[in-house]
Amino acid sequence: MTEPTLLSVDDAGTGVRTLILNRPQARNSLSQPVIRELIDTFEAIAADDGVRVVILAGAGPAFCAGHDLKEMRAAGYAPDYAEGLFADCAELMQSIVNLPKPVIARVHGIATAAGCQLVASCDLAVSADDARFATPGVNIGLFCSTPMVALSRNVAPKHAMQMLLTGDLIDAAAALRFGLVNELVPAAELEARTLELARKIASKSPLTLAIGKEAFYRQAALPLDEAYAYTRGVMVGNLQALDAREGIDAFIDKRTPAWCGR
Amino acid sequence: MTEPTLLSVDDAGTGVRTLILNRPQARNSLSQPVIRELIDTFEAIAADDGVRVVILAGAGPAFCAGHDLKEMRAAGYAPDYAEGLFADCAELMQSIVNLPKPVIARVHGIATAAGCQLVASCDLAVSADDARFATPGVNIGLFCSTPMVALSRNVAPKHAMQMLLTGDLIDAAAALRFGLVNELVPAAELEARTLELARKIASKSPLTLAIGKEAFYRQAALPLDEAYAYTRGVMVGNLQALDAREGIDAFIDKRTPAWCGR
Amino acid sequence: MTEPTLLSVDDAGTGVRTLILNRPQARNSLSQPVIRELIDTFEAIAADDGVRVVILAGAGPAFCAGHDLKEMRAAGYAPDYAEGLFADCAELMQSIVNLPKPVIARVHGIATAAGCQLVASCDLAVSADDARFATPGVNIGLFCSTPMVALSRNVAPKHAMQMLLTGDLIDAAAALRFGLVNELVPAAELEARTLELARKIASKSPLTLAIGKEAFYRQAALPLDEAYAYTRGVMVGNLQALDAREGIDAFIDKRTPAWCGR
Repeated sequence: MTEPTLLSVDDAGTGVRTLILNRPQARNSLSQPVIRELIDTFEAIAADDGVRVVILAGAGPAFCAGHDLKEMRAAGYAPDYAEGLFADCAELMQSIVNLPKPVIARVHGIATAAGCQLVASCDLAVSADDARFATPGVNIGLFCSTPMVALSRNVAPKHAMQMLLTGDLIDAAAALRFGLVNELVPAAELEARTLELARKIASKSPLTLAIGKEAFYRQAALPLDEAYAYTRGVMVGNLQALDAREGIDAFIDKRTPAWCGR
Repeated sequence: MTEPTLLSVDDAGTGVRTLILNRPQARNSLSQPVIRELIDTFEAIAADDGVRVVILAGAGPAFCAGHDLKEMRAAGYAPDYAEGLFADCAELMQSIVNLPKPVIARVHGIATAAGCQLVASCDLAVSADDARFATPGVNIGLFCSTPMVALSRNVAPKHAMQMLLTGDLIDAAAALRFGLVNELVPAAELEARTLELARKIASKSPLTLAIGKEAFYRQAALPLDEAYAYTRGVMVGNLQALDAREGIDAFIDKRTPAWCGR
Repeated sequence: MTEPTLLSVDDAGTGVRTLILNRPQARNSLSQPVIRELIDTFEAIAADDGVRVVILAGAGPAFCAGHDLKEMRAAGYAPDYAEGLFADCAELMQSIVNLPKPVIARVHGIATAAGCQLVASCDLAVSADDARFATPGVNIGLFCSTPMVALSRNVAPKHAMQMLLTGDLIDAAAALRFGLVNELVPAAELEARTLELARKIASKSPLTLAIGKEAFYRQAALPLDEAYAYTRGVMVGNLQALDAREGIDAFIDKRTPAWCGR
């Protein structure tokens, strides 16, 4: 029997699903089959009303060490293979951004190259205080050009360039200072704290979360006046939702809202 | 007699005008009439040579608690009402950005939802060290989709998402770390420190401030080469101003410049 | 005999070239001849396989105090002169960004106006812990409209506006917090530490560095999907390079790679 390469664990009754990369012996490297499996998994989650928030984690000593270099070498670096691999990888990262549900990275050990890109692509990230991060492609002659798309949209340019040009590991404190992760916790508390955060977000209206997440990334790419023209319409639409009326009523009446998801 | 909903206080002889939201019992929430009054006020200030710098503040326990939810509910959430409200709100925020004079937020208590958006829309912000900030729309089923336009242009994406997805209040130290405010001072010193900062800026050439503020936001939206092509022209034009010649002469001659505003 | 206005020092055998602005009595201000000399120097370095990483530094008490105001006044602020000056200056800043080799600013003393712009335009910056930074144009009636192009692409808007509207010097700790520089070191260790960083980067494949640096700035200006479409192609191309195959082989085989630069 082979171990599944991706574990899925549901937190009973809360709508929080934890996806766990499960190739610890390969430090959860993103082989092409794993990338395709993740894409399919996120596609299924998008359509699954039972899932409200996703935690992305890794089994074993590392969160994720990036691409599978042995697979690349075995494929002889063929252009056709490479085209497919990087197309799939870009699709995976954008499927996280485009998923209508929040995704939280739960980082421990190391998150390097495409593993660091996963962290940067998630909406939020909670990190063990002894985790480390790098975009070390420059050390193997293959610059982290796709990881930097996500990285450079998370951190200031000089911080991104420091990671990209040196290839060095940065510690969790630096990742926090750069804005790559939201908070640090002792490794022993990482799972509990990430779940606590996910449960809090999962208690919100899933419709509202979906509206807000989509609007966030769309407006960020627009000039200021277009961003306002777009989000004004989003607000007007959101206000017509039953969950907004329930939420406002509950707030004014000082009671807990009961979401219907519409 | 009714209290005015917006107070205006001029600092004698310096050109600093302080606008004070004055509905403390409603935590200075932005009802549609208040929004329209602010738009008209900024329009008048734009044309008033006597005003060089604006401070935006709030009376009572809070800076501003965002939109007026009771007004929304009383209006029955009608689409026509909502269209008008969010159009006005977006106009207000952009009128701050487009005002040819610096605007400084003076924040105490809480700045939430559209109140947090006001802080983000100002050019600078000085905050009491016990102030708190939030975009809590997600808690009432109405995502802070317009506040996030300003917020996400001030802070890193993961910081914005943390505020938007949890709805939690962040403390002033976090707001400082995220870049949402420029500095923290004890509450007792907030008014004096903000005025000191405003006076310093008001001592500069008003023409130079107007040229610079407009150019700042315009160039920020352009690709690098276009930003340089545009600002090169701004510099050449600025150098033809009498205030630039006076300023350079005064600098070389080690004396205080006397601005004429042209 | 006149002193050269720009010194060039090569670190034997490493490919690190240090360019030293050498008009200490003028605090290394960027006269138009110096700007043209720097442009020509970067153009020559672009074509020189012997140079892998550039350090930009200043002789005397300051890194660089910006434009040469006495030259401006002597030119009578003529529009033709000003057009040429700011065109050259914008060309210089972009020649650093477009140079296919990393450039590290080595900052001590002060970096003000166009001097601060130089720091912001470099890929990385190491600073003495007692250095100071400013965009003080507002003090002389000439807003730092071109420096802010680089500054506002390095730091958060409220940090940029604080520097631009007050004209105040910020200390090195603030520059580090804002993301304008990568690290601080005691002044006595500045030269050694910057050289150490440059040597580390110079030990990477120059081809990989060139691919990565170009891709970094190009993708940063694109929407997310276009950034991925573009960088996917960059990765596929990079993987065809001999240096990538050598790098991956060396990594898997746990040996030091030998770059051929192709």
